[in-house]
Amino acid sequence: MISWSNLYRVVEAMVPLYAAMALGYASVKARAFTAEQCAGINHFVAVFACPLLIFRMLASNDPYAMNLRFLAADTLQKLVALAGIAAWARLARRGDSLPWVVTLFSLLTLPNTIIMGVPVLKGMYGAMSETLMVQIVVLQFAVWYIIVVFLLEYNKATNAAAVDVEAQNSANSDASSETARESPSAARILATAVKKILKLPNTYGSALGLIWSLIAFRFNVRLPAIIDNSLSIISVSAVGLAMFSVGTFMARRKRFISCGYKLALVAMVARFVVGPAAMVVASLAVGLRGVLLRVGIVQAALPLAVLSFVYAEEYSVHPDIMSTGVIVGIFLSVPITLIYYVVLDL
Amino acid sequence: MISWSNLYRVVEAMVPLYAAMALGYASVKARAFTAEQCAGINHFVAVFACPLLIFRMLASNDPYAMNLRFLAADTLQKLVALAGIAAWARLARRGDSLPWVVTLFSLLTLPNTIIMGVPVLKGMYGAMSETLMVQIVVLQFAVWYIIVVFLLEYNKATNAAAVDVEAQNSANSDASSETARESPSAARILATAVKKILKLPNTYGSALGLIWSLIAFRFNVRLPAIIDNSLSIISVSAVGLAMFSVGTFMARRKRFISCGYKLALVAMVARFVVGPAAMVVASLAVGLRGVLLRVGIVQAALPLAVLSFVYAEEYSVHPDIMSTGVIVGIFLSVPITLIYYVVLDL
Repeated sequence: MISWSNLYRVVEAMVPLYAAMALGYASVKARAFTAEQCAGINHFVAVFACPLLIFRMLASNDPYAMNLRFLAADTLQKLVALAGIAAWARLARRGDSLPWVVTLFSLLTLPNTIIMGVPVLKGMYGAMSETLMVQIVVLQFAVWYIIVVFLLEYNKATNAAAVDVEAQNSANSDASSETARESPSAARILATAVKKILKLPNTYGSALGLIWSLIAFRFNVRLPAIIDNSLSIISVSAVGLAMFSVGTFMARRKRFISCGYKLALVAMVARFVVGPAAMVVASLAVGLRGVLLRVGIVQAALPLAVLSFVYAEEYSVHPDIMSTGVIVGIFLSVPITLIYYVVLDL
Repeated sequence: MISWSNLYRVVEAMVPLYAAMALGYASVKARAFTAEQCAGINHFVAVFACPLLIFRMLASNDPYAMNLRFLAADTLQKLVALAGIAAWARLARRGDSLPWVVTLFSLLTLPNTIIMGVPVLKGMYGAMSETLMVQIVVLQFAVWYIIVVFLLEYNKATNAAAVDVEAQNSANSDASSETARESPSAARILATAVKKILKLPNTYGSALGLIWSLIAFRFNVRLPAIIDNSLSIISVSAVGLAMFSVGTFMARRKRFISCGYKLALVAMVARFVVGPAAMVVASLAVGLRGVLLRVGIVQAALPLAVLSFVYAEEYSVHPDIMSTGVIVGIFLSVPITLIYYVVLDL
């Protein structure tokens, strides 16, 4: 049984995240910050604080001691989810199934690992869970977000081709038959997706962090304190500023649940029930047991990654659902994560 | 003699401050941040990060174990400086002497204690120097900035009265004899100065921190971790963001030395030579010896407090000199502080 003091330690880890978010929310409501000023703080988080935090996380993680069984479970969960969504899309035979594939995949399998995952899991299962979260972060950036952006780019290219065909069919004007473009090849779409990912400072943070850790743990060298301190003076601000920024984002939305209650319910069930359930199946399949199993399940029940919303907004693919997923998800995550934490201990 | 490893530890404490500043400078030069976005970050520092940092500093400082001799030296230094400046103003018999009194007083006696003082002194003389810096911060807010703002408000009121008298004398029109206002009393000016100080979030940070410390160290209670963590999630960002903000401020100035080389030299000599010299005199007068004497002198040789520039800008009283004092001061402070550190150890 989890003791009250243990539970309190988890609450202790979560409340500061909410405090920072509430401060951001109140600041905008009290008109202490303009939209552009909020954008400045958000930009600082995205360009400097978060990438440096990711770098320091990965740089301090021993890549030669990765838990392959844990990563296998995480990978299998995402493949199971992808297969399930593909099967549903085939059965539903909807024309616009691709956007839904991306949205559901993000909701099911992409939790907020860096900002919420590490502090919350650390509060629950100690320092070892930080290492596990970092390993999931590596795969998130190296594999899964590339797939998400590939699907979004593919969807964009397909839509553009469809518009061209439509333009060719109606009135069959002289200009449109000339301007009709070919649908780009999958290889070109993949290249575009990789380029997108390469524009993210987080990508460099994780790539350089991984490279450095490969060198550091192979040759047993350490980052000089003078460099590490210079990185940490900025990176320590990441969690507080990111949650503050989420708060300002919430305050600037017109409605709390912008996609309607029905879709919000679907999003919440996908995030907090189906995603973790897929993780249970995948974990048991690869033989994950004990604390590792619990860490795997709880991290799968964290709120939606903010980056998923960023892409949804950029590609106009269900941004309202994703915004609800992030906002309501963060609100619900305290009780839900605690319930998972307690139930898994039984 | 100071060992190389000791000296390196001080550099280790200072370089991160410069790294954060350089990042801010480069960000603006690379057009990664707009002026309004920089204002957002600066506003965050001023309204939340800094006040919370001050609160946590003061809250963790035992007010019943203040070093009265150290504070007496600090107070005497400021009184000596004020007397010296007043004597100079009387001898110079300039009509516009009051603005110069404020500017010279700030240059001589108000160092950057919170953002640079604590980390740098901690790197030099260990944790005990943090406690001493905090005690100086208390006096800075409770006494010295109130005097500075009082003088600035007094200057403003005198100028307004002079304008009225001039208007009365020329063409002696019907409206101006009616609108002539009396020069406000010193009590009213003091009230305005206090009001100004009460508008500063830093004031609340230090007042509440002091009050809490008086309670906490009297009744031996501690801030619950859940509250302390909620404060620190924001306050940890203060030093990095403040230095970043100074960097963005530098990058947006047209010239590095906006007041001209001659005045810049005067400002630097005042800050880095005369101010510390006054501290030496005051310290010896009250019998300060050993490490306390060194801490006192080195802190007196820190760069100019950013808040002094803020007021200079607000009251249009030599903002160009103060901006140079802050910018060039921060640049010169590494070699100068290190020289003081090494020389004082001889």
